[in-house]
Amino acid sequence: MTFKKIAFVATDVPEAQEALKRLSDRYGDATPADADVLVALGGDGLMLQTLHKHMHRGIPIYGMNRGSVGFLMNEYRDDELLERLAAADIARLHPLRMNATLANGTKHEALAINEVSLLRETAQAAKLRISIDGKVRMPELSCDGVLVSTPAGSTAYNLSAQGPIIPIDAALLALTPISAFRPRRWRGALLSHHAKVRFEILDSEKRPVSAVADHREYRDVVDVHVEEDPTIDLLMMFDEGHSLDERILTEQFLY
Amino acid sequence: MTFKKIAFVATDVPEAQEALKRLSDRYGDATPADADVLVALGGDGLMLQTLHKHMHRGIPIYGMNRGSVGFLMNEYRDDELLERLAAADIARLHPLRMNATLANGTKHEALAINEVSLLRETAQAAKLRISIDGKVRMPELSCDGVLVSTPAGSTAYNLSAQGPIIPIDAALLALTPISAFRPRRWRGALLSHHAKVRFEILDSEKRPVSAVADHREYRDVVDVHVEEDPTIDLLMMFDEGHSLDERILTEQFLY
Amino acid sequence: MTFKKIAFVATDVPEAQEALKRLSDRYGDATPADADVLVALGGDGLMLQTLHKHMHRGIPIYGMNRGSVGFLMNEYRDDELLERLAAADIARLHPLRMNATLANGTKHEALAINEVSLLRETAQAAKLRISIDGKVRMPELSCDGVLVSTPAGSTAYNLSAQGPIIPIDAALLALTPISAFRPRRWRGALLSHHAKVRFEILDSEKRPVSAVADHREYRDVVDVHVEEDPTIDLLMMFDEGHSLDERILTEQFLY
Amino acid sequence: MTFKKIAFVATDVPEAQEALKRLSDRYGDATPADADVLVALGGDGLMLQTLHKHMHRGIPIYGMNRGSVGFLMNEYRDDELLERLAAADIARLHPLRMNATLANGTKHEALAINEVSLLRETAQAAKLRISIDGKVRMPELSCDGVLVSTPAGSTAYNLSAQGPIIPIDAALLALTPISAFRPRRWRGALLSHHAKVRFEILDSEKRPVSAVADHREYRDVVDVHVEEDPTIDLLMMFDEGHSLDERILTEQFLY
Repeated sequence: MTFKKIAFVATDVPEAQEALKRLSDRYGDATPADADVLVALGGDGLMLQTLHKHMHRGIPIYGMNRGSVGFLMNEYRDDELLERLAAADIARLHPLRMNATLANGTKHEALAINEVSLLRETAQAAKLRISIDGKVRMPELSCDGVLVSTPAGSTAYNLSAQGPIIPIDAALLALTPISAFRPRRWRGALLSHHAKVRFEILDSEKRPVSAVADHREYRDVVDVHVEEDPTIDLLMMFDEGHSLDERILTEQFLY
Repeated sequence: MTFKKIAFVATDVPEAQEALKRLSDRYGDATPADADVLVALGGDGLMLQTLHKHMHRGIPIYGMNRGSVGFLMNEYRDDELLERLAAADIARLHPLRMNATLANGTKHEALAINEVSLLRETAQAAKLRISIDGKVRMPELSCDGVLVSTPAGSTAYNLSAQGPIIPIDAALLALTPISAFRPRRWRGALLSHHAKVRFEILDSEKRPVSAVADHREYRDVVDVHVEEDPTIDLLMMFDEGHSLDERILTEQFLY
Repeated sequence: MTFKKIAFVATDVPEAQEALKRLSDRYGDATPADADVLVALGGDGLMLQTLHKHMHRGIPIYGMNRGSVGFLMNEYRDDELLERLAAADIARLHPLRMNATLANGTKHEALAINEVSLLRETAQAAKLRISIDGKVRMPELSCDGVLVSTPAGSTAYNLSAQGPIIPIDAALLALTPISAFRPRRWRGALLSHHAKVRFEILDSEKRPVSAVADHREYRDVVDVHVEEDPTIDLLMMFDEGHSLDERILTEQFLY
Repeated sequence: MTFKKIAFVATDVPEAQEALKRLSDRYGDATPADADVLVALGGDGLMLQTLHKHMHRGIPIYGMNRGSVGFLMNEYRDDELLERLAAADIARLHPLRMNATLANGTKHEALAINEVSLLRETAQAAKLRISIDGKVRMPELSCDGVLVSTPAGSTAYNLSAQGPIIPIDAALLALTPISAFRPRRWRGALLSHHAKVRFEILDSEKRPVSAVADHREYRDVVDVHVEEDPTIDLLMMFDEGHSLDERILTEQFLY
């Protein structure tokens, strides 16, 4: 596969901006609307932002690491960009779609590439009821919070909350509690990627909860639905031998 | 040991208020200032409140369960109160003293019987530096939060965060991370009860953190010191054969 | 789907033998070779035995619980067996194929429905090298042992070793360490069901290791290969509304 | 404190034997019976051996690392040995005393500095009843095994089995299950160092269990008692600033 029109995006730090200038001079710089590939210069934060911004276009994104956390980024090099793009593996992912109802009655929809997480806002423990596919599976979880993670997000917040790392092609979502108080030793569940997950916030006035879709936060939610959206394709490009599969496998053997 | 002047306190639910009336009629009702023992009718929340309120007097407190969570409470009975008080074991505990400096420069001191916990206030991970006895032991913990727990508190929030349950007489504090992101598999530490623990909040403007001493919350802390205060005695009374030691041992064999 | 020739098998306890007699009288009793369905009366142990014994025939097996552990068994009832068989969901699973080389040079092959586990035989820690698809991923694991589990086995030994419960249709295998000493906090990995896993036993004379395929044990192994065998179908039948998927989902919400 | 008569012991590897020769030439070499301090040249294995061998004499032991695992050893240096010995901190520990009854009726006693562990000998899960101070606390634990660890041993096998690291002066023992099957999420307990722990092996003919006191193994045990022996002092010497307390604290902050 060959790419001819490259649009570059970069984070606002000198290291990334200088790379942006060099690469634009050398490889041309199409506008994103015009390009057939996006090259993102920064860290994982930029990759997620860029995926969000261009999510509905299905355009592939190739990241090069100019940031601190680069799990989703390829190694930075000035040279041979066209060859690397042509040889790259493309990982096709789907985001989560969150529908949240707030205490004030407004409804909000957001997409998440990594995870949707709920967290208590105050010193009061959150109380949540969890349903899967319309059936209550956890009548009352008393906790700091809970999250639903995609395979791509399973090495992020999910891992901090002791959830399992999931291979990209596993067609699973991780449901992982955050500091569960009762039931106190519940470790969460691996769900089919078709699962429709619903969180009802119990006693939400006394125990306010926020919901976060990737980095976008909604305060005072009362009802949150989460499911994979298979109609949206996220295309991330990885150098040969460094596919996302390989990265996630490697990550599982780190210690 | 015999007790002659009993003061009763109760939570504001019918079950507790009715017990308060019956017991006051039967056993008299001294004022707290006048009493040589306090009898608390409610759940663990009331016990903690009562301990806080009368902490500096060193008066023993005997709880009877009229609430939902009664780990610190004795079984409720109308009869034989004087005999039970006379026969009870007294557990002597010390609280944690927290000194917190806020972003606005104010300083606050609070005591905690269970734990002092720090938690991120927003979707941004907290970044903390942890020192023990003046020496940095964890240069940067990226996490949802962290807590210091007494043995008495080790079955509460500490347990939710996967910290160990500690016997009352162990002379230890538990330092337990809450969803540690980096280092990702750090499980916390058991510290000497003499340990002076300091948390410095890094990047606190972008990543605001709250501190909670038992249920009292302080928003936007930047520096938090925690240590046991051995000069304050908390005296809780437990029926024979149901000492706090025994309860904590039992708790460790629950599953 | 209707079944006409039923062969019954039962464990050797009165409860199971009496059921065998009643059901044979009522529904006839074909020989296993002649039958188009097997009905197993006992616990999970019998189900595994029966699956092993008839593995190469691809005949469906319907279990009814007459034992103590019945995760794979349907509820026992005398009545309506034909209707239940006709309405049952069939779960199609594949076993693991283990190829083990022993210290004496002999080679052994075995199939496992739940898991292949390796465990040290003596007080000496096992030292293992783990490769996935021909690539060393863990150069030296010092441990009590390690296991590879199918989704069906993920609620068995894998769960005891703190491995994740895996939905039946997830196309994954769990690789889970047993008391890892170094690297001390390695938690294992979820692998593609295509993964070819190899364990080389290091220092095997001083540190002997046994391998177990389900309940079949091989002492003093030096090299063990494990992979799914997709050419063998295991067919287990479950009452409507109690499919294996449903059971594994339920299991994940137990506490 | 000054030491005049030094006896050296060394493991049987060139690195240790050469050090032995150099140091004996330089500092003299008393017989162990004659010495007032032992200097052990090797790794933790040698330290444990030396402690065991001279346990009843209460002689202090100073280790210098000539092996691979040196948690209990000081840094190796040829020079300034007398000064280092004079300045060293002495940690005073007590061993565990194990009394095991075997299936053949014989009784065996052994001491353990790190831990007493029980482990199944075959593919059959062990079934154990656990009592503390004469009271059954766990009627039936189905598992790979279980261990009792001293604080000194808490960074060894106990840590592999996910048990907590315990400060040296905490006066606690860790009781930690190894791959618990039922109750499946039991995590063990921290016990008073006065606790008398008893393990009864259930169904021991079908499910044989071995007991190991440090590295000494007893096969086919049926009843095992474990408790601290406060009458035996183990004296280990550590360089200033590298006390055992400090080492264990440092270990808890490793990741």
